[in-house]
Amino acid sequence: MRFYEDISVGDVRHSDEYHLSKDEIIEFGEKYDPQPFHTDEAAAEDSVFGGLVASGWQTAAICMRLHVQSSENTATQAGLGVDDLRWERPFRPGDSLRLRSEIVDKRPSDSDPGRGVVRTRHEGRNQHDELVISYETTAMIQRRG
Amino acid sequence: MRFYEDISVGDVRHSDEYHLSKDEIIEFGEKYDPQPFHTDEAAAEDSVFGGLVASGWQTAAICMRLHVQSSENTATQAGLGVDDLRWERPFRPGDSLRLRSEIVDKRPSDSDPGRGVVRTRHEGRNQHDELVISYETTAMIQRRG
Repeated sequence: MRFYEDISVGDVRHSDEYHLSKDEIIEFGEKYDPQPFHTDEAAAEDSVFGGLVASGWQTAAICMRLHVQSSENTATQAGLGVDDLRWERPFRPGDSLRLRSEIVDKRPSDSDPGRGVVRTRHEGRNQHDELVISYETTAMIQRRG
Repeated sequence: MRFYEDISVGDVRHSDEYHLSKDEIIEFGEKYDPQPFHTDEAAAEDSVFGGLVASGWQTAAICMRLHVQSSENTATQAGLGVDDLRWERPFRPGDSLRLRSEIVDKRPSDSDPGRGVVRTRHEGRNQHDELVISYETTAMIQRRG
């Protein structure tokens, strides 16, 4: 396992690639974000996006999946929050996404000596290396021993 | 339709209630956040949560659904970002969630006279009126005419 002590500021991880389908956009949109530009192909053409786009929350959820994969075996106990999330560009059917995650801060927990708090900056880019989403997360990581 | 001009700082909307099932937590977890405390009931008992909890991204996605319902007919063009998201408490199987959304800022778009930018603070509370999630969103809203 990779514990709090094994994590250094400046560590970078690169994820696998995630390919997004039209059906998956519509399925997520109907369940969690039922706005026409996520659920209705014809209506989406008349939107500012000019076609279907993933819900921003689906984009974030896909990043979470990529991050769990790329940070396998890290002793994460819980996520605490997210700051400065920006949807920079639409994530469209047929696009892919890769996540770059960099540790930007770490400190021992104030309240629990068994934990540390780690801050990570994430950037998701599409197949053209264009920035689609960026944000910072704060998570509790178990300390060794 | 409710346009930018129809929105005032201080406007508050209250959503319907969303009931969360165990199966839904596991389904979302397996797809987007495959950590044991979201996908494996037995392993979750040994986690800091002491049982299955929803992925924080699922909690946020459920809030999005509640917000789309409670702000029906608003001329939202796109979400821009999220700030200060905090997962305050676990969201567990059998819990419900209600969202309170308050407009905290609005301004015309710098780049497009057809739009305004609206900032909203959201708070999701469970059936015991305990805060589960809070965050602020920034969205582009169409101007009238």
